[in-house]
Amino acid sequence: MKKWRWGLALATAGLTIPSAAFADDPTVKDAIQAVDAVWVLVAAVLVFLMQAGFALLEAGVTRMKNAGHIAGKNVLSFAIATLVFWAVGFAFSFGDGNSWIGVHGFFLDTSDDNIGNVFSSLSFADVPMGAKFMFQVVFAGVSLAIMWGGIAERAKLIVYFVFGSLFIGLIYPVIAHWVWGGGWLSKLGMQDFAGSTVVHLQGGVAALVGAMLLGPRIGKYNKDGTTNLIPGHNTVYAVLGVIILWFGWFGFNAGSTFMAQGTFFPYVAMTTNLAASAGAVAALLTAWIVLKKPDIGYMLNGVLAALVAITASCAYVKPWAAVVIGAIAGTFMVFSVLFFDRVAKVDDPVGAFSVHGVAGIWGTLSTGFFAAPDLVEKLGVGKPGLFYGGGFSQLGVQALGLVASFAFVFIASFLVLYAIKKIVGLRISREEEIIGLDVSEHGASGYPEQLPHGGEYLKVK
Amino acid sequence: MKKWRWGLALATAGLTIPSAAFADDPTVKDAIQAVDAVWVLVAAVLVFLMQAGFALLEAGVTRMKNAGHIAGKNVLSFAIATLVFWAVGFAFSFGDGNSWIGVHGFFLDTSDDNIGNVFSSLSFADVPMGAKFMFQVVFAGVSLAIMWGGIAERAKLIVYFVFGSLFIGLIYPVIAHWVWGGGWLSKLGMQDFAGSTVVHLQGGVAALVGAMLLGPRIGKYNKDGTTNLIPGHNTVYAVLGVIILWFGWFGFNAGSTFMAQGTFFPYVAMTTNLAASAGAVAALLTAWIVLKKPDIGYMLNGVLAALVAITASCAYVKPWAAVVIGAIAGTFMVFSVLFFDRVAKVDDPVGAFSVHGVAGIWGTLSTGFFAAPDLVEKLGVGKPGLFYGGGFSQLGVQALGLVASFAFVFIASFLVLYAIKKIVGLRISREEEIIGLDVSEHGASGYPEQLPHGGEYLKVK
Amino acid sequence: MKKWRWGLALATAGLTIPSAAFADDPTVKDAIQAVDAVWVLVAAVLVFLMQAGFALLEAGVTRMKNAGHIAGKNVLSFAIATLVFWAVGFAFSFGDGNSWIGVHGFFLDTSDDNIGNVFSSLSFADVPMGAKFMFQVVFAGVSLAIMWGGIAERAKLIVYFVFGSLFIGLIYPVIAHWVWGGGWLSKLGMQDFAGSTVVHLQGGVAALVGAMLLGPRIGKYNKDGTTNLIPGHNTVYAVLGVIILWFGWFGFNAGSTFMAQGTFFPYVAMTTNLAASAGAVAALLTAWIVLKKPDIGYMLNGVLAALVAITASCAYVKPWAAVVIGAIAGTFMVFSVLFFDRVAKVDDPVGAFSVHGVAGIWGTLSTGFFAAPDLVEKLGVGKPGLFYGGGFSQLGVQALGLVASFAFVFIASFLVLYAIKKIVGLRISREEEIIGLDVSEHGASGYPEQLPHGGEYLKVK
Repeated sequence: MKKWRWGLALATAGLTIPSAAFADDPTVKDAIQAVDAVWVLVAAVLVFLMQAGFALLEAGVTRMKNAGHIAGKNVLSFAIATLVFWAVGFAFSFGDGNSWIGVHGFFLDTSDDNIGNVFSSLSFADVPMGAKFMFQVVFAGVSLAIMWGGIAERAKLIVYFVFGSLFIGLIYPVIAHWVWGGGWLSKLGMQDFAGSTVVHLQGGVAALVGAMLLGPRIGKYNKDGTTNLIPGHNTVYAVLGVIILWFGWFGFNAGSTFMAQGTFFPYVAMTTNLAASAGAVAALLTAWIVLKKPDIGYMLNGVLAALVAITASCAYVKPWAAVVIGAIAGTFMVFSVLFFDRVAKVDDPVGAFSVHGVAGIWGTLSTGFFAAPDLVEKLGVGKPGLFYGGGFSQLGVQALGLVASFAFVFIASFLVLYAIKKIVGLRISREEEIIGLDVSEHGASGYPEQLPHGGEYLKVK
Repeated sequence: MKKWRWGLALATAGLTIPSAAFADDPTVKDAIQAVDAVWVLVAAVLVFLMQAGFALLEAGVTRMKNAGHIAGKNVLSFAIATLVFWAVGFAFSFGDGNSWIGVHGFFLDTSDDNIGNVFSSLSFADVPMGAKFMFQVVFAGVSLAIMWGGIAERAKLIVYFVFGSLFIGLIYPVIAHWVWGGGWLSKLGMQDFAGSTVVHLQGGVAALVGAMLLGPRIGKYNKDGTTNLIPGHNTVYAVLGVIILWFGWFGFNAGSTFMAQGTFFPYVAMTTNLAASAGAVAALLTAWIVLKKPDIGYMLNGVLAALVAITASCAYVKPWAAVVIGAIAGTFMVFSVLFFDRVAKVDDPVGAFSVHGVAGIWGTLSTGFFAAPDLVEKLGVGKPGLFYGGGFSQLGVQALGLVASFAFVFIASFLVLYAIKKIVGLRISREEEIIGLDVSEHGASGYPEQLPHGGEYLKVK
Repeated sequence: MKKWRWGLALATAGLTIPSAAFADDPTVKDAIQAVDAVWVLVAAVLVFLMQAGFALLEAGVTRMKNAGHIAGKNVLSFAIATLVFWAVGFAFSFGDGNSWIGVHGFFLDTSDDNIGNVFSSLSFADVPMGAKFMFQVVFAGVSLAIMWGGIAERAKLIVYFVFGSLFIGLIYPVIAHWVWGGGWLSKLGMQDFAGSTVVHLQGGVAALVGAMLLGPRIGKYNKDGTTNLIPGHNTVYAVLGVIILWFGWFGFNAGSTFMAQGTFFPYVAMTTNLAASAGAVAALLTAWIVLKKPDIGYMLNGVLAALVAITASCAYVKPWAAVVIGAIAGTFMVFSVLFFDRVAKVDDPVGAFSVHGVAGIWGTLSTGFFAAPDLVEKLGVGKPGLFYGGGFSQLGVQALGLVASFAFVFIASFLVLYAIKKIVGLRISREEEIIGLDVSEHGASGYPEQLPHGGEYLKVK
């Protein structure tokens, strides 16, 4: 890397070196690398903020007594994800390896001081390693954040440490490698532009497994077969969370171009936005018809389900198809939530499996229907969809990828969670659950003036 | 579009194509198009987040019983705006047409697979269609969000669907076309850099019409001529909302350069920031003098009024003028809110007309006074202001644009809202208003543990 | 500046000028200036949002009766910072001058209409003046926001005006000039990449001085020598605040490259993220061991302490060292908070000195240990650290810079605050403190439906 590039940085110590930056004639390639890196890093930073979105949404749709734990746990979760992904997850996902897993690049340990392109399968774009790592670690963090929705309000804190580490270190990287890291599904031409399968289905399935193994919250189901709604304590938090997630999703999807050159990424942002909007309206109207009220919670989940669905297909489909995909996702989600909540009686407090799992499946399949020939040709991945005369071949690849990914994540998550259950237990005690996680696990109410934890003033020492 | 540009995107499916991106020698123009597109899309994404700002501000300054509805409605509103703007609003605003309206480009339906520059009047910048659409749709969404402030806490949900669709589809695009889409005001050289008139005045006037047609909230005015303050339930939300709006405004104003090349946009961000700061201090001091207390709500509205005012002039004025414009806007706003709230007795719960309408008028006029010759020459729009020896000519154009825009929006909004009032009614019943919109319209309290909606647990099925 | 650069801006008035932008053949340098400006301005905007982070964090960890004041004060504080930094602070910091202070460039008053590079010591990067000002003013605003944490819940509003103005106008610029503006510490090669000393130590020391001069809040310490915990009222706010701060820190640190070219900035984002994650985990575990509970508040402060520490060193150290630096910062912070809260009995409600001061010291020293030779060579500032065979020389420079900066800020802050104390008083009355600042200083509760300020409806006029 040429000296001139670093010249200006002297400035950070106040030295005066006018115009030094251009002494050695940077090339067009230098300019394009810079703009690609800006876009990818900005996108990564937007995706990072989705942690705030998940924290607010999950806290908003659950109860006051658990709010501090639920929000705070997202910070812990992302911290664990960062450290484990740096240590092993990134290497397993994107390091040189075989069709099943990467086996090089642990701890980002490169002998190259530039932290350059040492992983050959990481040449997916010509952005620097730091940008690659940042963009990928925030994706892994989102997948893990989704998982926690399914086990909200009743899991032990230790689960977040143990499952979090193993999911980021051993589960998520496998599917990421299969689909994005040069693995067998990428060789088959599976179309998952930004991760309906890799990120959302994985998180959603883990949430489903967690919800099943933990069982429902106290008071959720009655002996007479009826179901109790346990309303969330703060709708404003939930709304803010969803808007922040929508905001972050522009980075999530449009950043998955991994480059600014060619200026394709705004197109991806546009399809993403259209789908989300269609999902909001479709879910609100569906809830209005089915439940006789225009429920805000379903509308919010409609936005997310649509965003999850368009995640795979955002770069492959036309604007009108994005609207259709989003509307179907929002509609499906309502029925899926009702099914799991009232028929299957799986207590998934935030609807994580319906929003991320079911919509992730639909989104992954959607390219098999709607992928437009010109966009497929440009992207060079897979084939056009059924509605464009592409036949069933791409749909088959998508379905195969889904079945394989679902099976792997389900089994792996089950094994990990089951082992935790047997060894230390997954669930807090009945007393702790009634008191709430804030006081029972962390020793302090999240709202001490509204839900006191034993007096406002605690004398110490 | 050359093949090489898409080469790297293969990566998203994990394929290894090292350095393919540079096989065909991208040009300087390619680099500049990329950086322009990054800036415009990032700016659009910042403006998108303003929906969270409006949701928090409006919810914060109104009551708990309506909070879920008020926040959630912003998500619905933006979803409707996106779908309608995609279908017709964008074409009416920016499609080929005449001096009054655009008539091409509905549903972004282009036969060009690149979704390229098919609208000749859309050549305002060399950014791709997706970025243009995203940047414009978030602007339309802001204008609509402003409107809702005036009708808060008492309008039927159906109003949001019907007025929202018609405003985005038929009202907003007319002024957008006049001023920005090649219409008659743009030909006259009207200076409205980022939309004091197009976005803010429109939203503010619609809010005024809505507030007048709906009438005041129950308990707002007494028979003895006195006025009751109805304080908002959460000042922290309001503060967070305003900071988010300020944050988004950097995209709003500085993104309106539509390009990064020439590096003029940071100047626009700087004048925007100076004005907002001056507005905060001026409004706080004015409220302190007039009301005998340093009211936080007025300070927050002072930030917004100043931002609204600098929106038209941010690119045309010097830093000192930005400070003056912002300070005047913040000061005016206090008197305007007091006038409408206590003298005119128009119940505008968030002060939408004072903040966006009155300050929008001032901001639009301000270039007629303060536009600096060198900046006017660079931008190539209109003439310098009165204080720089430009005479009254630019001031006249600005005033003409204001009168025409005010009249059109006032009449059009009135006709639409009056028709809704006569056909289905604008306002919820007295009982619903007392109960609050969360329970009466949506069937669920926004804060069920603090304002129960009939028991925390609702048994279903 | 060439005419072509401004051609496209015509578009803002809707004129059609296709392709005008490229009429005069922009150069590679133009492209690189544009991308550098985009990165620096985006980074500045991210840092701006940190004001929301501080507002939420500080409000969340204090009591309901002060929440509106605490959050709202951040808007006022940033507004004051902007106006004063524009008037004098920027010139004192970065204007032409001597080893001690800059003496040119007040009010950004340049005779050059381009607001160009008129300050010779501001040539630290080839970004336009607007971007430089924006990036620097948000830094100054952060330093001031840190200060307020130490005096929370008991200071008069006038203190925010007077100390805020003097800190931004006279105190902060001195250290900024010494370290970043061509002053004596920059000439010695002090390594403070993004401001562990300049921004965080300054704010933290001012907070310490303020907390000492104001004395503890009523009820904080008992006559028997015990300490009362005064829990914050909303943990969700605190979590959201910290995530927003983390988000903004990517701009804070990675933006301090002042350029995108060379694509070094993502590396800085990566080390920043690793440190923050290590700090979260280390602080949580430390609190768990020491306090017997996994306290969320300590975890959140662990994130911040780690971010403060990596701020100086983010560009100088390897990823593994970032993890170590962050973990140590998170651990130190717990003991430091306990020491000041329970042993020294300085009531610093948010732990501002421990988080920003102590961690700032550690971070500034950390490059003396961990600075890697290849990165030091690239950046061209100072020498490698002790662990890389660089000896004690860099550590000595860092320590000297710390001692000098600490002494200056401590003395200057003390003089200003002591003068305020003697002239108008720093502290509100006992009655006002018990009532809370929202009602006593601003005349309105921040949560009027939960903490009424004398009836929900206030009749006026």
